[in-house]
Amino acid sequence: MRILVVNPNTTTSMTRTIAEAAREASSAETEIVAVTSRMGPTSIEGYYDEALAVPGLLAEIVAAGDTVDAVIIACFDDTGLDAARALANVPVLGICEAALSLTGFIAARMTVVTTMDRSRVPIEYLVQRYGFASRAKVRAADIPVLSLEDPDSGARDKLREEIGRAIADDRAEAIVLGCAGMADLVRSLRREFGLPIVDGVTAAVKQAEALVSLGLSTSKRGAYAKPVQKPIVGMSDHFARS
Amino acid sequence: MRILVVNPNTTTSMTRTIAEAAREASSAETEIVAVTSRMGPTSIEGYYDEALAVPGLLAEIVAAGDTVDAVIIACFDDTGLDAARALANVPVLGICEAALSLTGFIAARMTVVTTMDRSRVPIEYLVQRYGFASRAKVRAADIPVLSLEDPDSGARDKLREEIGRAIADDRAEAIVLGCAGMADLVRSLRREFGLPIVDGVTAAVKQAEALVSLGLSTSKRGAYAKPVQKPIVGMSDHFARS
Amino acid sequence: MRILVVNPNTTTSMTRTIAEAAREASSAETEIVAVTSRMGPTSIEGYYDEALAVPGLLAEIVAAGDTVDAVIIACFDDTGLDAARALANVPVLGICEAALSLTGFIAARMTVVTTMDRSRVPIEYLVQRYGFASRAKVRAADIPVLSLEDPDSGARDKLREEIGRAIADDRAEAIVLGCAGMADLVRSLRREFGLPIVDGVTAAVKQAEALVSLGLSTSKRGAYAKPVQKPIVGMSDHFARS
Amino acid sequence: MRILVVNPNTTTSMTRTIAEAAREASSAETEIVAVTSRMGPTSIEGYYDEALAVPGLLAEIVAAGDTVDAVIIACFDDTGLDAARALANVPVLGICEAALSLTGFIAARMTVVTTMDRSRVPIEYLVQRYGFASRAKVRAADIPVLSLEDPDSGARDKLREEIGRAIADDRAEAIVLGCAGMADLVRSLRREFGLPIVDGVTAAVKQAEALVSLGLSTSKRGAYAKPVQKPIVGMSDHFARS
Amino acid sequence: MRILVVNPNTTTSMTRTIAEAAREASSAETEIVAVTSRMGPTSIEGYYDEALAVPGLLAEIVAAGDTVDAVIIACFDDTGLDAARALANVPVLGICEAALSLTGFIAARMTVVTTMDRSRVPIEYLVQRYGFASRAKVRAADIPVLSLEDPDSGARDKLREEIGRAIADDRAEAIVLGCAGMADLVRSLRREFGLPIVDGVTAAVKQAEALVSLGLSTSKRGAYAKPVQKPIVGMSDHFARS
Amino acid sequence: MRILVVNPNTTTSMTRTIAEAAREASSAETEIVAVTSRMGPTSIEGYYDEALAVPGLLAEIVAAGDTVDAVIIACFDDTGLDAARALANVPVLGICEAALSLTGFIAARMTVVTTMDRSRVPIEYLVQRYGFASRAKVRAADIPVLSLEDPDSGARDKLREEIGRAIADDRAEAIVLGCAGMADLVRSLRREFGLPIVDGVTAAVKQAEALVSLGLSTSKRGAYAKPVQKPIVGMSDHFARS
Repeated sequence: MRILVVNPNTTTSMTRTIAEAAREASSAETEIVAVTSRMGPTSIEGYYDEALAVPGLLAEIVAAGDTVDAVIIACFDDTGLDAARALANVPVLGICEAALSLTGFIAARMTVVTTMDRSRVPIEYLVQRYGFASRAKVRAADIPVLSLEDPDSGARDKLREEIGRAIADDRAEAIVLGCAGMADLVRSLRREFGLPIVDGVTAAVKQAEALVSLGLSTSKRGAYAKPVQKPIVGMSDHFARS
Repeated sequence: MRILVVNPNTTTSMTRTIAEAAREASSAETEIVAVTSRMGPTSIEGYYDEALAVPGLLAEIVAAGDTVDAVIIACFDDTGLDAARALANVPVLGICEAALSLTGFIAARMTVVTTMDRSRVPIEYLVQRYGFASRAKVRAADIPVLSLEDPDSGARDKLREEIGRAIADDRAEAIVLGCAGMADLVRSLRREFGLPIVDGVTAAVKQAEALVSLGLSTSKRGAYAKPVQKPIVGMSDHFARS
Repeated sequence: MRILVVNPNTTTSMTRTIAEAAREASSAETEIVAVTSRMGPTSIEGYYDEALAVPGLLAEIVAAGDTVDAVIIACFDDTGLDAARALANVPVLGICEAALSLTGFIAARMTVVTTMDRSRVPIEYLVQRYGFASRAKVRAADIPVLSLEDPDSGARDKLREEIGRAIADDRAEAIVLGCAGMADLVRSLRREFGLPIVDGVTAAVKQAEALVSLGLSTSKRGAYAKPVQKPIVGMSDHFARS
Repeated sequence: MRILVVNPNTTTSMTRTIAEAAREASSAETEIVAVTSRMGPTSIEGYYDEALAVPGLLAEIVAAGDTVDAVIIACFDDTGLDAARALANVPVLGICEAALSLTGFIAARMTVVTTMDRSRVPIEYLVQRYGFASRAKVRAADIPVLSLEDPDSGARDKLREEIGRAIADDRAEAIVLGCAGMADLVRSLRREFGLPIVDGVTAAVKQAEALVSLGLSTSKRGAYAKPVQKPIVGMSDHFARS
Repeated sequence: MRILVVNPNTTTSMTRTIAEAAREASSAETEIVAVTSRMGPTSIEGYYDEALAVPGLLAEIVAAGDTVDAVIIACFDDTGLDAARALANVPVLGICEAALSLTGFIAARMTVVTTMDRSRVPIEYLVQRYGFASRAKVRAADIPVLSLEDPDSGARDKLREEIGRAIADDRAEAIVLGCAGMADLVRSLRREFGLPIVDGVTAAVKQAEALVSLGLSTSKRGAYAKPVQKPIVGMSDHFARS
Repeated sequence: MRILVVNPNTTTSMTRTIAEAAREASSAETEIVAVTSRMGPTSIEGYYDEALAVPGLLAEIVAAGDTVDAVIIACFDDTGLDAARALANVPVLGICEAALSLTGFIAARMTVVTTMDRSRVPIEYLVQRYGFASRAKVRAADIPVLSLEDPDSGARDKLREEIGRAIADDRAEAIVLGCAGMADLVRSLRREFGLPIVDGVTAAVKQAEALVSLGLSTSKRGAYAKPVQKPIVGMSDHFARS
């Protein structure tokens, strides 16, 4: 099975972190095809970046066409998830939804720790929409997304402090990492905090494998019905063709 | 005061209908600047069209810059609303949120009647997010958006039948028209059904005027904080500059 | 257009503050008719005062009859709002509902700061009913309503401190002033805190103008159906006649 | 123990029905003091009647003073309940809240059947506020309140038909009678329909007895704090004194 | 009337505390039949203990058969409540549901103070299910259930401290005692804190008396339909017979 | 990896159906250990059967001890799920929660079709608790659980009719099979109805594999803390030892 993992921001180094986590989590028979979007912001921090990332993301899905069995959108805002589900013929996973769902099986109460404060409210809306409003809180460590890649930025320490507050003040039973760029921290954070730490990229890989192996894909009735063919003015060819 | 009304689909004839309704609703001192997006699908029917419409919509907001006092997004999916609020320095209104809010002052229970069934669930999510889950139902008349412009399509009859069902079966106290392209039907539908019929374009014009005249604009703390300046790969200039 | 603004408490000096704010917010062609209720408590602090204020409020609406195009109830508890909607032939606005709705267009999270603690729970119920339960918190500055009129009471300082706590602890993106008697503080508080401060009286004026200019009024189907004519025992004439 | 049962409408014959049901339900040591409000509409059908009934209701509570141990407001809209709780030194029960609570112990799903359609939405708000939104539906039999007293009005047949629909269509496990004037029908309806039929007057009598015998009364912290003493302009003496 | 009060843990001394509270609360004509379950854990602290307590609890209900008019389950987790309602021919009360319902009549906001932290989430789910999610908070005093019986354990002091925090931090208007073993503390705690303190055992006694005297019992339509007769493998006789 | 699948009813033939579905869904490296509970009812239809099934279910988990890596409870009521999570050292999946979660990735709206009406409300509570209240409806085909095994019972036809109604009336985008005994019908129902049909047993197998392969297990903080060691009176040895 081939799973397309799209990093919807345009920073290749972050794609590498994501791809590595995805590959490690995947089954032997799964091939992870990790791509960096070729169009959009270098990091996704809040609603504006998110919106600009969507066309590039959809372009990668169109480009992959029928060569993949599932798609993962590797940004915790679940950027463009609904559009991708309508567009693709294969199941599409967002890493926020995947992480919350999986954590829901092992903890009654959880806290999402994300990067910047401007992402807190967008994630709170996802938490509400996915049915976790009474079970999950959202905190921001106040760190730019790309600072996670810089060991000297102090970002990881800020993240660890915020996790500590989530455990003490929210009585979190598990922590959900609220950014695809944190995927490589799971192991050390589990050791340090001694409670389940869930990363969305790996969670989504397993959910994609689950859906594909059970022969399930997005329903084409209702919300995710196949888009009507129509002219797309002023946008690149692959969209017109999709 | 100048209000930018963006039709986020690329169909100019629909912009004319919208502009006319907006102008008629506006105060004497308000100038309506109605533009058609130059990039995106010819109509917005569901999540995929919506996603493709956002960059063109944002481009119009960037192009207008400081020459306008408020922005209205004239699509009932409130396409790109959050991104536009983060981007713009002036208040931004979506016609779904504006219509539901205004109807909430005059009716305890309401029904939104939209075009195609694939738009029903996206609007139900908006209804929930805007706090009307226990007060508003959503129905689709099963008509393509652009058929509203064709008097021979039977679309208007289907719309009227669905409004009849909303009144009889949902016990709707008011009807919200769930598509910007229905703005010209308000008067005749009110006469026919004898209960409040609310159109989002005109509702948004009055809300925009209200905010501007009270000196209110989008809070730049939290969810709608000014986007961080960063490279936007592969997208046209005005985005890089915004 | 003539808008009746009823101060449902019987303190004339507070009506002056309200009327001034309403006039400043209104359009050139709007006439504000501000009246003080002639029956009821001198201030409305909690459920009991609220209940006693309703007949006097309704009497003013009856007295105005067909000479006005809309009614505003200038008390943040939205005192008697439902009854007034059933009674009046013109749209009726409560200042809590108007303020929350307008703030919802410019902020994802907000805090209402009201006067006394006994008003906190009643306003929390309104917040829930109007669909803002996950977006708005309510705080009380612990000040009697009428102390707002006394510059030496320290009330305004307490209010400013509570606003400070709302911004710091609730991460409020905007502040809603939870009492009609705060309408004159908007400007100075905006300067001090640098985020949107919304007053309900002015919000309601704009909503009333919006409804009237769009030809919209309370639906007479369902919850706000015209009251059945029946004897009203032991109450003054105008009620029997209404 | 003495329980004051106030019929907040001014129709004495309905008080008799209520008093009889209350007495039959009460314990041997309980004395039911049933009074008819001396001020207000002859029946309470919707928000307007409700508002006009409150002062008369509160006057009866003031008049009873310390001679009673609990108060029951015998109207299914729970007219003036919050104000009465703030005012009285003894516990105050509304018949809607009492009926829903008691039914909640014996049925997972229930339907309230009330009189006129204009009362449906107000009761739906109570259902939501009392926490039964996912468990209780509300239906109106489309009968005026006072027609229940007229055997030739056909009202009782309409009520029975609506109960039948509630059982068939809502899958109601129990029926809550949504009007104090239905208190005398409990026995015959139980026989006819073979499922629990709950009347609010009798439910409230038992809840009042429960609270009094356990030494419990309304908390005077927060929402129901003792009203602040203040001038009540233009209202009769007992209010000024309360 | 005879009310069966089952202590579903197997600690006889705790049954004595419960029985005493129940008897004191009951009417003159009520006989309290208090029994200790003969099968299950010595105290119920969390989900696992709760599950093991259910068969013993149901066995006591079967054993009592038609000799009782109502059943009370004296554990704040409302252990086995749904199963008991399906099984029994008489009404069944849980003490959490009874306490929350009764407190709801006298306070708008309340806090449940329970024993150990592992019981907090299970009680939060009950709070949500019974419709009190926006009105009731849950706190744990971090004390083992049986330590309440040991005056030297410091448990009662910890409980008092937690009640103090509930009043100060949650602005609780009333306190609900979250364990059957606290039934003897009501009087002293009321004196100390001066606000309503509600115990579930006594609340349930009054609700049971209410239901029985009004001729009401669990609906046998829907959720609590009589169990289908079927083989119960490997369990004791009385279950096979029930 | 070894996954224990417990059929909590005592009907061996049903375990065979479940085991077959589980094995087919599992990865090559997964071993399915399917056991039939040795204690409890022959089928689980409603709350009473559910309660009696729990001790037998827990006994199987204790018996398996450290020889398995995950546990699946193969009954759609998620019988004993919370207790099992507190008890076990490995992750525990319920098939209702697993099915709803997985379906949530591929459909915005879904309908659960279960067996008997008495299971409808219990499943509605699960739907609410798992956060799907606004997305999932529940229907009963009115068929006894074990009739699914009898080709001549007409049960499968009734099931297919109810699925048809779910698609037509609920506008379901996907169907969730609401009984473990339906696991063998997935393939034929998908062919017939042409939309996603999700079975909980297979969904749970993939979720169990996901958790185990990601090194995740139930948090032992909060709701699922390890049970306190204490005497279990009158129950078999393995419980005392657990």
